[in-house]
Amino acid sequence: MRRKAVVLLSGGLDSAVTLFLALRNGYDCRALAFDYGQRHKAEIAGAKRIAAKAGVPLNVMRLPLPWKGSSLLDKKAVLPSGRTAREIKSGGIPTTYVPARNTVFLSIAASFAEAIGADTVFIGAHSEDSSGYPDCRREYLEAFDNVIKLGTRRGAEKRLGLEFPLADKTKAEIIRLGSSLGVPFQFTLSCYEGGKKPCMRCDSCVLRAKGFKEARVKDPCIIQKRK
Amino acid sequence: MRRKAVVLLSGGLDSAVTLFLALRNGYDCRALAFDYGQRHKAEIAGAKRIAAKAGVPLNVMRLPLPWKGSSLLDKKAVLPSGRTAREIKSGGIPTTYVPARNTVFLSIAASFAEAIGADTVFIGAHSEDSSGYPDCRREYLEAFDNVIKLGTRRGAEKRLGLEFPLADKTKAEIIRLGSSLGVPFQFTLSCYEGGKKPCMRCDSCVLRAKGFKEARVKDPCIIQKRK
Repeated sequence: MRRKAVVLLSGGLDSAVTLFLALRNGYDCRALAFDYGQRHKAEIAGAKRIAAKAGVPLNVMRLPLPWKGSSLLDKKAVLPSGRTAREIKSGGIPTTYVPARNTVFLSIAASFAEAIGADTVFIGAHSEDSSGYPDCRREYLEAFDNVIKLGTRRGAEKRLGLEFPLADKTKAEIIRLGSSLGVPFQFTLSCYEGGKKPCMRCDSCVLRAKGFKEARVKDPCIIQKRK
Repeated sequence: MRRKAVVLLSGGLDSAVTLFLALRNGYDCRALAFDYGQRHKAEIAGAKRIAAKAGVPLNVMRLPLPWKGSSLLDKKAVLPSGRTAREIKSGGIPTTYVPARNTVFLSIAASFAEAIGADTVFIGAHSEDSSGYPDCRREYLEAFDNVIKLGTRRGAEKRLGLEFPLADKTKAEIIRLGSSLGVPFQFTLSCYEGGKKPCMRCDSCVLRAKGFKEARVKDPCIIQKRK
């Protein structure tokens, strides 16, 4: 019997690569996305397209966090913009940080995984984001794996754990991996602004463009923009 | 300035004692309760009364988990009943275990705490429940504290952590402590069945009755029942 997995799918590039990697590794996957009040709600439509392309059922959970504390939850807030990749890297935790977001998402994914008898929760958090977001660092991900192993029935039975296969990869490495796995990059959305076209100025757009350039892969979203 | 805390308040006895303890220790408290599809929804009304008595604002978050996997989420399921405290203790994880429940609640509490600039998240999990529920054990609670410290902005700045002051206490010790703090036990609900009167047969009623007996304190809920 194929091992079951719950894969966090945001509609962005990293989680799409993670889903296709889990599928290639033989997992029977269920995708989980959140409508948590993010300004870039277009992500959710992207997650639906990616899951459909992958042939994987998607569960979209409404989880409107009743508090703010992030420029990603507040449409009136000004997003960091026009920073270079180096400035992003050295700038500390940005205002787009959503309080404990990955912890909330992972905890619900762990609950879902237990309820359906899955072995693994996958998250696409990785090293470049971890320079800004504390909940993307390897040491954090290992700590959460420990929480699953101590705090769930299946974890205590050594039948549930967290995998974070992109944790130490650069964006360029992730894009090359996704390219080899046939990830439909045209459906992935990175822009924090949430407009129909990527703004090319927010941190997420800047890191994506740098990644595609370094990977020497064309970003289909940008090609569409230039048409 | 008083230190702010987020206190998980279920409407049960343990979390009520934790709230009154945090208040006595000088914290400016916000209580957080969840409407997560539990069969004993009466808890939420209890949480409202307890928070009102304590003079603390209460945030009730709707979080209907779209999966089951617990007799506490499924009104048609049969609850464990008529077991002695010893049988409960030796019986392993009961069917009332809700997949990753404390992890989900704590993660949302951590997000709330960051958003309002709190220093501490309080949870009333303790040793007697920990014999059955993996997510009530001290080692689990310490692992979650580590997640907060690594995975949140305030945690990384050493300004947010988890406190679990009841972790090593018996139910009788918790009741004696609550009694000394003036906890309104009459508003606390323990019964899993969720009826107007405690069933006195579910695990939670059995452990509560044993605790009051050992503490030599009268349970006002039972007195009311006998009227």
